[in-house]
Amino acid sequence: MTPLSPTSRSTIRRGAARARTDRAELYAVLDAGTICHLGVVLGGAPVVLPTGYGRIGDVLYLHGSTGAGTLRAAADGAPICVTVTHVDGIVHARAVFHFSMNYRSAVAHGVPRLVTDADERLAGLRAITENIAPGAWDHARGPNRKELAATQVVALDLAEASVKVRTGPPVDDDEDVEAGLAWAGVVPLHTVIGTPEPCSLLPSAIGVPDHVTVAALVGRGGPPPTRVT
Amino acid sequence: MTPLSPTSRSTIRRGAARARTDRAELYAVLDAGTICHLGVVLGGAPVVLPTGYGRIGDVLYLHGSTGAGTLRAAADGAPICVTVTHVDGIVHARAVFHFSMNYRSAVAHGVPRLVTDADERLAGLRAITENIAPGAWDHARGPNRKELAATQVVALDLAEASVKVRTGPPVDDDEDVEAGLAWAGVVPLHTVIGTPEPCSLLPSAIGVPDHVTVAALVGRGGPPPTRVT
Repeated sequence: MTPLSPTSRSTIRRGAARARTDRAELYAVLDAGTICHLGVVLGGAPVVLPTGYGRIGDVLYLHGSTGAGTLRAAADGAPICVTVTHVDGIVHARAVFHFSMNYRSAVAHGVPRLVTDADERLAGLRAITENIAPGAWDHARGPNRKELAATQVVALDLAEASVKVRTGPPVDDDEDVEAGLAWAGVVPLHTVIGTPEPCSLLPSAIGVPDHVTVAALVGRGGPPPTRVT
Repeated sequence: MTPLSPTSRSTIRRGAARARTDRAELYAVLDAGTICHLGVVLGGAPVVLPTGYGRIGDVLYLHGSTGAGTLRAAADGAPICVTVTHVDGIVHARAVFHFSMNYRSAVAHGVPRLVTDADERLAGLRAITENIAPGAWDHARGPNRKELAATQVVALDLAEASVKVRTGPPVDDDEDVEAGLAWAGVVPLHTVIGTPEPCSLLPSAIGVPDHVTVAALVGRGGPPPTRVT
């Protein structure tokens, strides 16, 4: 596996100690997420919208309606930025200046390509669906010709990407630590998966299938998930 | 309270039925979040980075090191986009085409101003700290002159913003509902707050203060939080 090779744009300058250079860490952050924030430039100004995504090897797939402005810009040879962030905790320091968050974030830059090959389009759509709902692609009805015609798929090579991770306790000034006047520590945040809520229009014979139950139990990586109601 | 007055850029075209026009809903989505995704344009390309924020009335405050490129761009009269998203559930449909997510998202566009007034700078920094750690500003040591000099604060008026919310079950085609061949429903996702982890360097006399305990119990809006270990 090749390490992440930073370009000028993907070189982390602020908090360089938090930068990770292992490609496996990029994959781990991406694969643990449900949505990314997709940035495009429209009329000279940035637009940032949440959207789903999927990864196959070193390629990130995005999809959207053929009518969506942001994806149309992305399919037109314009540069995009895709960011996936997990907030793992609030870091309370002795001084407000040192408050922080524990997090994992991945940022990928590049000019995506419009996917036109029928097989790659299907593979990309499958990856996007499976990223939020593992096992769902083979369970649900696949896309028909009309649905495929209404959907654009773009691919971003993960060539220019960075990963940043903060973990652990606050980093305070020595004199504040010694003074011992304020509480300091981490308040963890977790994403947990609740009990599946079946659609009221389902025939009563259809129980919650294994892939939904398993996803609910296994969670999405990161801190151990807890099942809540 | 004035309703959200959409401009061309902040008019929601895709899924217009999910658009909300009440300013209170904008505030609710923003106030429930811990991080935003800040988009700027650097060298003609979008850059999207996670960062903290705080809100006072109709103004959103961002801060960062004076050395940070994204914030420097924002302070230089360049347009920015700030997006806050909560993922509330994975929507399983009978057809992969109709898979979706339940979510709340707020998107604000504009040209921020660099905050130079000393009182407003402090108020903005306080709002940013209190957004992730209510009660912390009065508990921890306030910023000294050196820390203030190293910090930039920018303000974005929430004049051009949109809110989008999806709730509820999947929306499938009638024939797929009638066929009844696949499970459909919602798998909820919740953000929960874990047990505070005190810094190992704390004097043993300092217990977890009320504002940390209360934040852990009350959670951050949205679905009812659960305390996990």
